[in-house]
Amino acid sequence: MAVAREGETESSQFAPTLQTTTDPSSEGSNTKGFSQTLQPFAEREKVQLSQFSQTLQTPMAYENEIRRDWILNVPEPPGLFTNLKTSFKKTVLSPLENKLQCFGKQPGPALVSILNVIFPPLSWRKEYNVTKFKRDILAGLTLASLCIPQSIGYATLAKLDPQYGLYTSVIPPLIYAMMGSSREIAIGPVAVVSLLLSSMIQKFEDPTVNPIAYRKFMLTVTFFAGTFQAAFGLLRLGFLVDFLSHAAIVGFMAGAACVIGLQQLKSLLGISNFTNKTDIISVLTSICKSMHTLNPYSVMIGSSFLIFILSTKYYLARKYKKLFWLASMAPLLSVVLSTLVVFLTRADKHGVKIVKHITGGLNPSSIHELQFNSPHTAEAAKIGLIVALVALTEAIAVGRSFATMKGYRLDGNKEMLAMGVMNITGSLTSCYVATGSFSRTAVNFSAGCETVVSNIVMAVTVLISLEFFTRLLYFTPVAILASIILSALPGLINVSEAKYIWKVDKMDFLACAAAFLGVLFVSVEIGLLLAVGISFAKIILNSIQPGTEKLGRLPGSDLFGDVKQYPIATKTPGALIVRVKSGSLCFANANFIRGRILNLALEEQDEGAIENGDQDRVQLVILDMSNLLNIDTSSIAALEELHNELESNGMQLALANPRWHVIHKLRLANFLKKIGGRVFLTIREAIEACLTSKNLLPI
Amino acid sequence: MAVAREGETESSQFAPTLQTTTDPSSEGSNTKGFSQTLQPFAEREKVQLSQFSQTLQTPMAYENEIRRDWILNVPEPPGLFTNLKTSFKKTVLSPLENKLQCFGKQPGPALVSILNVIFPPLSWRKEYNVTKFKRDILAGLTLASLCIPQSIGYATLAKLDPQYGLYTSVIPPLIYAMMGSSREIAIGPVAVVSLLLSSMIQKFEDPTVNPIAYRKFMLTVTFFAGTFQAAFGLLRLGFLVDFLSHAAIVGFMAGAACVIGLQQLKSLLGISNFTNKTDIISVLTSICKSMHTLNPYSVMIGSSFLIFILSTKYYLARKYKKLFWLASMAPLLSVVLSTLVVFLTRADKHGVKIVKHITGGLNPSSIHELQFNSPHTAEAAKIGLIVALVALTEAIAVGRSFATMKGYRLDGNKEMLAMGVMNITGSLTSCYVATGSFSRTAVNFSAGCETVVSNIVMAVTVLISLEFFTRLLYFTPVAILASIILSALPGLINVSEAKYIWKVDKMDFLACAAAFLGVLFVSVEIGLLLAVGISFAKIILNSIQPGTEKLGRLPGSDLFGDVKQYPIATKTPGALIVRVKSGSLCFANANFIRGRILNLALEEQDEGAIENGDQDRVQLVILDMSNLLNIDTSSIAALEELHNELESNGMQLALANPRWHVIHKLRLANFLKKIGGRVFLTIREAIEACLTSKNLLPI
Repeated sequence: MAVAREGETESSQFAPTLQTTTDPSSEGSNTKGFSQTLQPFAEREKVQLSQFSQTLQTPMAYENEIRRDWILNVPEPPGLFTNLKTSFKKTVLSPLENKLQCFGKQPGPALVSILNVIFPPLSWRKEYNVTKFKRDILAGLTLASLCIPQSIGYATLAKLDPQYGLYTSVIPPLIYAMMGSSREIAIGPVAVVSLLLSSMIQKFEDPTVNPIAYRKFMLTVTFFAGTFQAAFGLLRLGFLVDFLSHAAIVGFMAGAACVIGLQQLKSLLGISNFTNKTDIISVLTSICKSMHTLNPYSVMIGSSFLIFILSTKYYLARKYKKLFWLASMAPLLSVVLSTLVVFLTRADKHGVKIVKHITGGLNPSSIHELQFNSPHTAEAAKIGLIVALVALTEAIAVGRSFATMKGYRLDGNKEMLAMGVMNITGSLTSCYVATGSFSRTAVNFSAGCETVVSNIVMAVTVLISLEFFTRLLYFTPVAILASIILSALPGLINVSEAKYIWKVDKMDFLACAAAFLGVLFVSVEIGLLLAVGISFAKIILNSIQPGTEKLGRLPGSDLFGDVKQYPIATKTPGALIVRVKSGSLCFANANFIRGRILNLALEEQDEGAIENGDQDRVQLVILDMSNLLNIDTSSIAALEELHNELESNGMQLALANPRWHVIHKLRLANFLKKIGGRVFLTIREAIEACLTSKNLLPI
Repeated sequence: MAVAREGETESSQFAPTLQTTTDPSSEGSNTKGFSQTLQPFAEREKVQLSQFSQTLQTPMAYENEIRRDWILNVPEPPGLFTNLKTSFKKTVLSPLENKLQCFGKQPGPALVSILNVIFPPLSWRKEYNVTKFKRDILAGLTLASLCIPQSIGYATLAKLDPQYGLYTSVIPPLIYAMMGSSREIAIGPVAVVSLLLSSMIQKFEDPTVNPIAYRKFMLTVTFFAGTFQAAFGLLRLGFLVDFLSHAAIVGFMAGAACVIGLQQLKSLLGISNFTNKTDIISVLTSICKSMHTLNPYSVMIGSSFLIFILSTKYYLARKYKKLFWLASMAPLLSVVLSTLVVFLTRADKHGVKIVKHITGGLNPSSIHELQFNSPHTAEAAKIGLIVALVALTEAIAVGRSFATMKGYRLDGNKEMLAMGVMNITGSLTSCYVATGSFSRTAVNFSAGCETVVSNIVMAVTVLISLEFFTRLLYFTPVAILASIILSALPGLINVSEAKYIWKVDKMDFLACAAAFLGVLFVSVEIGLLLAVGISFAKIILNSIQPGTEKLGRLPGSDLFGDVKQYPIATKTPGALIVRVKSGSLCFANANFIRGRILNLALEEQDEGAIENGDQDRVQLVILDMSNLLNIDTSSIAALEELHNELESNGMQLALANPRWHVIHKLRLANFLKKIGGRVFLTIREAIEACLTSKNLLPI
């Protein structure tokens, strides 16, 4: 309030001029309401009021002065270091402190609560009962029947021996069941991650030439992926998962599905001499060249069972909701039937490729297979990072969508930690990267699972199969595995979502299309990179050359809106009101905006002069700063230049509604003095003060 | 208005409830003003009015409905392609069209106007007179006296023979004088660009081992730099210059000045065995190791004249403003005096290094020296690009600051074209990269220059010196050149500006410090890269984890402000009003913001319940979208999730004041229906409608 007192001498000129304000419509409106509501506020500041009443006769002028005081005398905003400290405290210290505190006070119950935090399933152990257990067993068995053939298929997609897929469906689900907080998610190998792993690792180790080295590399990558995931969870870097935007994921998944489908043609057609590359052109060329090696029996077996699985899934299960278990069992059924067919007809002697021997038994230890001294360790870590992010993106998307459906919240950071521990443990027990599978989680949900116990049931079932039934899979044709993978792919291609993205946001669609085409025509990593790159380029591009918009007054109100958004809005004669279409004014756009506003002002001035003669010439340019969250020194320099240029063209610059950091920085930079204190809380006040009185109270 | 009509059945419940609104202070205030100003608008829409008056009794409710109609029925915003087309038209087509048009209509005057556009000096030829010419000659001669010794010095800094510096002060100023639009700028070699060139080129060609290949490389880089500059100008990419933020330039210039100063110690101390690296540690080690080769006569001559030049510049010229010419002449005077001293004492026989032979005469052609087939051509182009940007940044900063001072505008794109043509021509006539020099432009301005004629006078003077006086420089000691360069450095270190940056913006200071330290401790390019990288990282970081702020009502108004910025603001019981501190809601921040808002709402709900019992529990979360310029599909998904989560906790989500693109996308995504149409023009309306009536008119 010291500010207002300094201005007493000038304010006597200021009060009478205000009564002849140019816009009568907005005048009387607020005055009466104001004098009533001002009472408590005025009482609090009696001293100032008496001083004011001598100099400012109208309540309007008084109100405006009070408001200017609000905008000018803001408390100092927290600085960079305070912000960093608070953010560090919030994300790292206080969760830690909370845990330590409850540990210190009551060691008994605290231990329980800590255990509850680390092992969320403990918290619902009391509510668990026989009914729920029965449902979980049913869901787990359904899950296992789908999981066994899929795991074997994904292991071949990852270019590993079939048993590694089964191993990955045993240990990771068990670990997750202890640490994870989602109740529906089904853990195991998934198609996209398997493809990503094989396509990236085979650049360094050829799985056909040196399968042992390839497997060691794979396990090392799994270890790194788990370590990164656990680290993200511990360091609360959950937001990293968001860097793959929704649109990019849609495009990437669809592209990956196409690539996986193309890869499976090899097994389905029974051809040999297949390319190692994943892009569509190499694969199609390779297929055309090898068409003569096609095996008709393979094609017959593969395609007939593919049609069977697809028809149960997309026809029967949709028409008769209760038959969904048939769709889940179809893959296992196909495996059993096709194996029988091959065994009875001995089709393997006619060139139908079969799975042959699968090593059975428990997951063997693989600690000795991890390699941290090889020349490719850095590459393994890099691949681990990429795979960790992709796997987490899928798992968290799956987990969160089902959690929202059932009405509970999932802590992203805790989930990451669980995934990380699960993959680290996996890498020590011959598993490759596991994550939450979209298709199997949906089956689990439909089968009526209640808790992660269904995952345990599944894991135990897979374990039993590994122990006793692997020999039965000797005659399983490879083509049937391809059919099973192919039948899972349509779920990854979401055309309606792509259409929706196109409809709502063209730039998002660009990221989506880039990811899709990049995966399809170049490689999986390039597709990912393109999608992330475009998404971030969009953020930067938006900041570089933002547009400006003219504002007009909405009839019967003190609101000002974009004249294009609200065609009903009217211009104020003599004033140009502009707003920048950007959240911050910074080095990258300040000069551009300066030029744009100056050009707008000069154009408007010419138009006004032509239309209405000199009295409507633009004398005032009001910059509405309500959406500018921050400025930097470059932009303050640009504003100063704008002020000088406008002044030399007979116009004044006024600022309306600057935000906290903005007004604070403008004050520090002494900019408010330079523009004669023309900073106002609202546009209306700027118009009233500047178009009626040239002399403002000093600030 | 069709929307309102559909809602008739529900709106009869709606009207009476509105009269019992929770916040009486804001009620009566706007109503009266509204009914007056609404008249013209109401007449335009008579049909709807009569329908309304049956169902909505109060003018308040009517007003609110009209306003909801404004926000809901916005015209479709221009799409991505329309925007691209408009932007292309504005920046490329219309300037071209304008030129073609005026050419087509009146060939005679049009030709003049085109010539005026290409050669701006033509436009002021009529106002030019003898008085101005006299002033320009004086300024040009002053400029030349400073330019000759500086050019020789900068040529040695660029590791070229001295005459190349002089060549660069002849052709480029002449070309600029024809095409440039600045009247004060002084063209020629500058310190920072010379350092940048030598430090980057000597990685590929060693100037001591193979000076001819080095020179060819330098000329090729100059050609590329010119080509890039001209291309930027023609393609209107002037904004690229802004990528070096003000803060980064301050840091970079200071770092470069320190590095140049360290480099000059070699000549000043007369030591040999000097390092090629530019970082402070290598240079200081090198100096310490070679201290025994120090030549006391060099040190004596160099430092005494350095003191002389600095004292005239910083003491005499500041104290007696009229003696500024002495400061400008001091370098030339030092050269003459020191040359005389060496000649008379034959100090060169005592180890004082001298310039020796300088090839005189006109600039020789260098077309045959440009190399486009060498293995380093791509590198030359890359260096050319960096140098082009740095040179333009300096020139445009210089030009613009003096233009603003004299009250005329400089077209950045035109300037770039002029600089480009000037450097291309330069590369063909044995010149290296020239640009506008800060120190010499200031001298030109103080000497009272009127137009670029002063540049022509300077160029002619340098040309005459080249033709006749180069032999006189045989005995000039190298130490004096070092003194001249050193004396120009303090102008590049702007401590007060760095302090200002620290005061106003800590993040800006980080970019400034990174540029400074990067140049000083690593290399010139790394410093530049760091500064640009930090500046852009800041833009991205701001978008990733933006804060949220609670809003409160400013007393006696319908304005809502950050409760921290305006401690006077009061909360509305039952409602939480939040705003995101970011200009866009996008994939990178939507989930983070969703979590933040949900946590805020839950906290607020608990607090409210504890303090005031259940009646003040938060039932409504209003998201003020006034500063969100854009959203994408990821963020719409996050908003939907937020809506679901809030609903399952007994709260409603309402949106206030969405911008054009935002409301359009929300509409396309069918989001408005999902949240029950709770979108309002202002926060006040959201509070009134949602806290008093649960049933809204359908949208």
